[in-house]
Amino acid sequence: MGVRALGLPEATRSPNTPELPERVTIWEVGPRDGLQNESGVIPSDVKLEFLNRLNAAGLPVIETTSFVHPDWVPQLADAGEVINGLSPKPGVRYPVLVPNQRGLDRAREAAVSDIAIFASATESFAQRNLNRSFEEQFEMFRPVVRGAASFGMRVRGYLSMVFGDPWQGAVPVEQVVDAGKRLLGMGCDQLSLGDTIGVATPGQVESVLRGFYAADITADRLAVHFHDTYGQALANTYAALRLGVSTVDASAGGLGGCPYAGSATGNLATEDLVWMLSGLGIEHGVDLELLVDTSTWMAERLGKPSPSPVVKALVR
Amino acid sequence: MGVRALGLPEATRSPNTPELPERVTIWEVGPRDGLQNESGVIPSDVKLEFLNRLNAAGLPVIETTSFVHPDWVPQLADAGEVINGLSPKPGVRYPVLVPNQRGLDRAREAAVSDIAIFASATESFAQRNLNRSFEEQFEMFRPVVRGAASFGMRVRGYLSMVFGDPWQGAVPVEQVVDAGKRLLGMGCDQLSLGDTIGVATPGQVESVLRGFYAADITADRLAVHFHDTYGQALANTYAALRLGVSTVDASAGGLGGCPYAGSATGNLATEDLVWMLSGLGIEHGVDLELLVDTSTWMAERLGKPSPSPVVKALVR
Repeated sequence: MGVRALGLPEATRSPNTPELPERVTIWEVGPRDGLQNESGVIPSDVKLEFLNRLNAAGLPVIETTSFVHPDWVPQLADAGEVINGLSPKPGVRYPVLVPNQRGLDRAREAAVSDIAIFASATESFAQRNLNRSFEEQFEMFRPVVRGAASFGMRVRGYLSMVFGDPWQGAVPVEQVVDAGKRLLGMGCDQLSLGDTIGVATPGQVESVLRGFYAADITADRLAVHFHDTYGQALANTYAALRLGVSTVDASAGGLGGCPYAGSATGNLATEDLVWMLSGLGIEHGVDLELLVDTSTWMAERLGKPSPSPVVKALVR
Repeated sequence: MGVRALGLPEATRSPNTPELPERVTIWEVGPRDGLQNESGVIPSDVKLEFLNRLNAAGLPVIETTSFVHPDWVPQLADAGEVINGLSPKPGVRYPVLVPNQRGLDRAREAAVSDIAIFASATESFAQRNLNRSFEEQFEMFRPVVRGAASFGMRVRGYLSMVFGDPWQGAVPVEQVVDAGKRLLGMGCDQLSLGDTIGVATPGQVESVLRGFYAADITADRLAVHFHDTYGQALANTYAALRLGVSTVDASAGGLGGCPYAGSATGNLATEDLVWMLSGLGIEHGVDLELLVDTSTWMAERLGKPSPSPVVKALVR
């Protein structure tokens, strides 16, 4: 591989940016958000090897699968088998997405202790993705989150379309903060702010984060989830780090976002994030060589190259 | 195209980052640095149409070609024809790279008024690219820069391998600042700080810029030139903007850096830069739709897709 020979950047923590976190938790979404958005269905044994490899590479949180109805997401129809087959590594979290009460029931049956729900910051995406109004989604999620909390589960709230919506365009910061507060208020322990269509730029990231801070929601309750559709994901991440955010979502090899697929969503590749964090001297605990090996291996399974620049550069 | 329908981000100049420049000058390097690093040789008439299209798209500075020996860079062997055939647009600058005294003579014959030289921040790259030692390069460039200045030409000094060198690894900031001061001291009016192998991360960018500022070289004398080899170019650009840099090099469509070529250098795509600047509310004067049209047209001439995420997303 020769990561070092290729000049993995030296740590350069600028004394002038003390606001950068010392450590970032990478929330790996490849097995769930990534595979959910790839066209092929990956066999369960390949998924389990993928999870083992991500464990070996040192990812601290691995969103494992989704208890969504198989008719909606056939790629993750084997969620039960995957959870049962998982070899958990001590200290690593394996959250599972649950869309609704039925998903929570399945999570309980599978003894999952860490879940995520997927809400919308906009009316139009709530209608299209959840078949609910913006208001109604909170009624749907409240018993799920409260139920999960009563079982001692940790619940992450995804908030999607935070920085723009393909039908509505701009999304007012007040609306985003309002939706986020409601998710936290019902019992979510963390919000992941999603740029679902990848249009955000760093000034918007600052505006949204400062909107939350003004509402007394601190950086430790927030994560960022950027898509690289327009190449902005790392610049946006850097802006968020400079405002103290220390949980960043990413997908191994950029899974779920191959730029040559019509449905490309463009998840930020974990490798590209790791390169930046290493260069900034921010601890992350991930072994880049093992991760690149993993993404290269998965790209062979999918029959297409990883869109990650770091993966491409290091396997060249 | 539907740039607006696709949600070109609204300007969000954060009141908390007043250090961002109000306007950025995009130094378009596609016709020179881009085409120089593409494997095919583009006919002169296609180059001239490319330049006309870049003019129409509103680029304020277009590095047009290079008076380098044709044996070294056959892609730009037609520099004289291109300069003669150019239809200059009032107010636009058309710098030409000159490697040495012979190049300067050709630039004078062609009535070029704006040139650039290409120096190295490291010993190893000076040896390999210039066949000179680090010290000897200054002896070579001094008469060229002084001669050009005496003819009333403007001279940009490129400084390459500023953030890392594939043979030496890390490059001390003091060495970079020393080399830059010498180029400015001999008469260059601007330095372009190049991450030739694309390894930089934002903390390094800050360290190098603050090194120059500490030596009383201000942001208006500096430009940044990032490569997207590891996906870091826009994050690095954002870090530079936050330190007041207001000239940014980029290559239309990411020319010169197709990620599937072994020789990829990965120039930052002008479109990806424009997307970020527009989102930040920073003036740039470029029409993104015309630019994307241009890069799409050029990609057809080269027979391969643009690696720019913005180009891919907008022509999908």
